Amino acid sequence: MSRFWSDIVHRLTPYVPGEQPALAHPVKLNTNENPYPPSPRVVEAIRRELGEDGASLRKYPDPTARALRETVAKHHGLRVEQVFAGNGSDEVLAHAFQALLKHDKPIRFPDITYSFYPVYAQLYGVEYETVPLNSDFAIDVDDYRAPSGGVLLPNPNAPTGRALPLSEIEVLLKANPDAPVIIDEAYVDFGAESAVNLIDTYPNLLVVQTTSKARSLAGMRVGFAFGDPALIEALTRVKDSFNSYPLDRLAQAAALASYGDQAWFEDSCAKVVSSREKLIAQLQASGFDVVPSAANFVFARHSAHDAATLAAALKTREIFVRHFKLPRIDQHLRISIGTPSECDALVAALGEILA
Amino acid sequence: MSRFWSDIVHRLTPYVPGEQPALAHPVKLNTNENPYPPSPRVVEAIRRELGEDGASLRKYPDPTARALRETVAKHHGLRVEQVFAGNGSDEVLAHAFQALLKHDKPIRFPDITYSFYPVYAQLYGVEYETVPLNSDFAIDVDDYRAPSGGVLLPNPNAPTGRALPLSEIEVLLKANPDAPVIIDEAYVDFGAESAVNLIDTYPNLLVVQTTSKARSLAGMRVGFAFGDPALIEALTRVKDSFNSYPLDRLAQAAALASYGDQAWFEDSCAKVVSSREKLIAQLQASGFDVVPSAANFVFARHSAHDAATLAAALKTREIFVRHFKLPRIDQHLRISIGTPSECDALVAALGEILA
Repeated sequence: MSRFWSDIVHRLTPYVPGEQPALAHPVKLNTNENPYPPSPRVVEAIRRELGEDGASLRKYPDPTARALRETVAKHHGLRVEQVFAGNGSDEVLAHAFQALLKHDKPIRFPDITYSFYPVYAQLYGVEYETVPLNSDFAIDVDDYRAPSGGVLLPNPNAPTGRALPLSEIEVLLKANPDAPVIIDEAYVDFGAESAVNLIDTYPNLLVVQTTSKARSLAGMRVGFAFGDPALIEALTRVKDSFNSYPLDRLAQAAALASYGDQAWFEDSCAKVVSSREKLIAQLQASGFDVVPSAANFVFARHSAHDAATLAAALKTREIFVRHFKLPRIDQHLRISIGTPSECDALVAALGEILA
Repeated sequence: MSRFWSDIVHRLTPYVPGEQPALAHPVKLNTNENPYPPSPRVVEAIRRELGEDGASLRKYPDPTARALRETVAKHHGLRVEQVFAGNGSDEVLAHAFQALLKHDKPIRFPDITYSFYPVYAQLYGVEYETVPLNSDFAIDVDDYRAPSGGVLLPNPNAPTGRALPLSEIEVLLKANPDAPVIIDEAYVDFGAESAVNLIDTYPNLLVVQTTSKARSLAGMRVGFAFGDPALIEALTRVKDSFNSYPLDRLAQAAALASYGDQAWFEDSCAKVVSSREKLIAQLQASGFDVVPSAANFVFARHSAHDAATLAAALKTREIFVRHFKLPRIDQHLRISIGTPSECDALVAALGEILA
């Protein structure tokens, strides 16, 4: 507390990211990172931009990230003016709150979802109402028919992992023609259907994606929004009033290169999905209820063991999973899909703890 | 314009950064970039973080940039809790507007200064009053004695290049004990005195610096704020409500390494200062009035030639300087200090144009 703080600073309850343990070899299944490295083309592209002496680093990056946006637009069959690039999808979402979700009516998002959403709302003074998930943690799009300042959903949802079919997203878009509908597709590549192809049909649709998960670039901070040029222009106006150059030279080069290696991308995703299905079966065999997952994590609850106690017991074994002390989900664990040996270590540790 | 835009988007007039010409070898003296590459240790540090296969990029960076902040704290004789790190000093300044400058009373900054300040004010609804520079483009700190929501000055000022002595900054701090005083030291290393050593004495002082200029890292986007821990906490609370991970892994490694090569840093600065002094003499000899500069650019006005016409004539020769179509300074050019051969090219071209 300080008399120099603006009012807003006093009111904020900042988001707390998953722990980054300072251990040599933790089994880190708490922040939904990809267990596989990025494509070798990414490494090559960074080396090329860096050059022998790093001379290019003295110059500002392209403030519009034009080459990156063109590449990603082409990848998704979009035009470049339908693509916005930001410093991770968290920054893209923050700009979307300020640029597209601040209206007279409150916005609506699920009661159980990405816990950064209420934080953004607080930061920008955006009124919101949460809409309860069904008892099986599913989103019912019929619950989003009331007029609102906007609708915001992750698909698949986090931390549940459950996906909505594209037909349901379309119901949502048709039911809310006068409000922005933002679909946060951070995890879409692990088994859900992207709404990107609906952009030309629905001028109220904004799709947010990231290179942090399926493209193994969490360390480089590059995210996107796709939508009607008017929505993209709103984000660009806010970005250009905040920070002209949010993406550094190496981040732009890295993200661009990752779209040039489709085989690597598909192979990484397939390995994660295969490990996920194996892990779900093992967790079920150990007495867990597991929410159906289309993401690179599972959301699981043991019928006889307290979730916080399990997370603490795993942590003593240097295995990190995420536990949220929040209503309705304080008996669940969110477990990221690691390498096969990391998943095996988790299953073995749980075997000991549950015994 | 779109019905999906928040009110604020309609009202914004975004900042326009200097042109990034798509030419093979422009003489680019328009964005105050350092003409020399960063230290070889920066390149080494990026290569080390990247490794053989880029495996570390799959993991999130340290959200607190702890190692970087510790290094920079030590460099300035500060404690780590007196250091904030952001995605370029533009992001740091944006957070400062939201966290520290939004109060009941308007803030004050010079009428001629970094043109991003009024843009931030608009974005966050911060009221401001501009205070005219003297006729010789100097800041008179006695003009900043009225109660305000905060005071914001670059030192040296941009685009004038003129510096205030530290004793004047101290007058300003003493005159405004109840308001945050932000000194934006983007260009301080080229000849002005930093206020960093005053931080322990004045809890209302925030000093903002960048690695973009003297450290040749404009392409990597790393900036800092230094101040009392309460001021740093305000910035951190806003940052953690906006984007947990604003600095990617390679940016953190690069900035950290640049503080490990003091000799490179001093040598780069000395070369720029030496070129500046030579260029000032040449410009004066060609009929320009040049504002005394402590920065890596000069601000000059020709007694007989229109500034916009000169800038256009230079551009046809692929030499880029910055011209601001703004009151009081529309007859000035801001010219970044390039390599000796870039400065020579400028002087030769001006010789032709003025002939």
